Amino acid sequence: MKTTIRILLMPVLALSASIAVSVSAGAQSDPLPSWNDGANKQAIVSFVEAVTSQDGPDFVTPGDRVATFDNDGTLWVEHPMYTQLAFALDRVKALAPQHPEWKTTHPFQSVLEGDMEALGKSGMKGLMEIIGATHAGMNTAEFEKITSDWISTAKHPKFDKLYTSLVYQPMLELMDYLRANGFKTYIVSGGGIEFMRPWTEKIYGIPPEQVVGSSIVTEYKVIDGIPSLMRTPKIAFLDDKEGKPVGILTHIGKRPIAAFGNSDGDYQMLQWTTAGPGKRLGMFVHHDDANREYAYDRETHIGTLNKGLDDASKEGWHIISMKNDWKQIFPE
Amino acid sequence: MKTTIRILLMPVLALSASIAVSVSAGAQSDPLPSWNDGANKQAIVSFVEAVTSQDGPDFVTPGDRVATFDNDGTLWVEHPMYTQLAFALDRVKALAPQHPEWKTTHPFQSVLEGDMEALGKSGMKGLMEIIGATHAGMNTAEFEKITSDWISTAKHPKFDKLYTSLVYQPMLELMDYLRANGFKTYIVSGGGIEFMRPWTEKIYGIPPEQVVGSSIVTEYKVIDGIPSLMRTPKIAFLDDKEGKPVGILTHIGKRPIAAFGNSDGDYQMLQWTTAGPGKRLGMFVHHDDANREYAYDRETHIGTLNKGLDDASKEGWHIISMKNDWKQIFPE
Repeated sequence: MKTTIRILLMPVLALSASIAVSVSAGAQSDPLPSWNDGANKQAIVSFVEAVTSQDGPDFVTPGDRVATFDNDGTLWVEHPMYTQLAFALDRVKALAPQHPEWKTTHPFQSVLEGDMEALGKSGMKGLMEIIGATHAGMNTAEFEKITSDWISTAKHPKFDKLYTSLVYQPMLELMDYLRANGFKTYIVSGGGIEFMRPWTEKIYGIPPEQVVGSSIVTEYKVIDGIPSLMRTPKIAFLDDKEGKPVGILTHIGKRPIAAFGNSDGDYQMLQWTTAGPGKRLGMFVHHDDANREYAYDRETHIGTLNKGLDDASKEGWHIISMKNDWKQIFPE
Repeated sequence: MKTTIRILLMPVLALSASIAVSVSAGAQSDPLPSWNDGANKQAIVSFVEAVTSQDGPDFVTPGDRVATFDNDGTLWVEHPMYTQLAFALDRVKALAPQHPEWKTTHPFQSVLEGDMEALGKSGMKGLMEIIGATHAGMNTAEFEKITSDWISTAKHPKFDKLYTSLVYQPMLELMDYLRANGFKTYIVSGGGIEFMRPWTEKIYGIPPEQVVGSSIVTEYKVIDGIPSLMRTPKIAFLDDKEGKPVGILTHIGKRPIAAFGNSDGDYQMLQWTTAGPGKRLGMFVHHDDANREYAYDRETHIGTLNKGLDDASKEGWHIISMKNDWKQIFPE
């Protein structure tokens, strides 16, 4: 169930955390002020300088400067549950008055009673029922409004802030820095593509066409004379693990030269990215800061980082310590 | 079979017809020199002026200036057969020495004997066998090399020129004109996405990430230690008819404000585009020039324009006459 929870569930529309700061690539002003000096910050700066040095051996033309970012746990908080799962559970509660039968029907009953253990036991079948009830059966414009309304009001249980405030300031700076150096930045997330698109441009500076994610089958129909894209409860594409290089192919058509993730769901994206010729950069965000955010890696069910930790050194991937590498976690 | 011939078959890598001419949006120089003055040229210019006039009622922010173009028959020649079908048939001939059994096995025998009628009778099953033999069973890098090699040498049977020379000069000017006015231009084709991507940037100025097309299932695998994207003979997505608005949703995540096609396969794309609020532009290229190119519409099996002609007036779509609206068909 774990992979699939991540899959059709995820993101947020919002009004906070504007990141339009244009960063100069010059040495005089630090483009990554929330990063502590150290090997990881140095690795980023060295990489960017190498691929942008027109006369250097590692120069990459701007059109090929593609950087991909996982979303949950890489750009924003993913514990105690994926934001999109929180959305789905809230939607079940909001829709419950129209479905009196849910009081005695699992998995809905589990959600309404807050029994997460029973919900977990309903497995993939239960999850698909929840997705069907909360993510499908409406057109894309209606779904956009529902997600936008939710993301602009729902708050994270630990931090009591909008989910879109719980994005990582150092990663915002990193995306700005890359874009200021001619990179095109993409989200490549296991989360639902249409759950993310309404807010990624405002929050991350990433427009809808640069968001890659999981999707359900959508059908074009003319209903009462109105052309509509109708969301169905069938999975079309799972953008996780082996799916990430495939999603990258489909949407971008080029191999990235830099990739950033935080879990084993991103392993293949980093592998595909760094296996290409020339200078490459692969980085995992390691959640090791229980005080300021969360600490988890091998043992968690959400955002498991296991094989990635084992193989990082061999593969030349960097492990970013939230605790040691980041001066600040969130904006503001 | 017709729809599906179009589907997994299509495009070209090349070295000709550079279109990097930057067009000034000013009134003094004509941004569409290959277009005759008339209602259609005027409709294009009026539309662009309306959506770019900052203080006007129809102003559209640059991020929402999305224009989509069908490829076959809209941007380049599609008769006597889709270019991608010519590619597939050539590949069967090239691979035949490694497959002696093809001499006596349909549909390959039909291809080798040039018996197009028998090939047509093999239907969808035959077509899928040909796609399997010519488009699958290799990784994406190998397929890119095969298509690139072919498109840089194969010639059109009537014009005896590279296929990439047989693009429509007025449409190249139109794409340049739109881009000069802040539009993002996309190809949305029934043809295979990976068949088009190797050459669309050079020929049309459209990079791989702005190409939407049909696709086969691609799988990420590590083979002998090498991460690879392997092409399989299963269809993943058909970007035709009702599929076009879905492909637009998947890849762009926004509704276009302008769409250009030439056949009923583009009907839903124009419908979806022009049903949106505000100023919209929908145009069909009508192949009515037997002297300079081809003349066909309702009766042809390739690029049929029937319902589109019937409904254009009611829907407010423009019919571009190649014969009357275009001074010149091809570059040079």
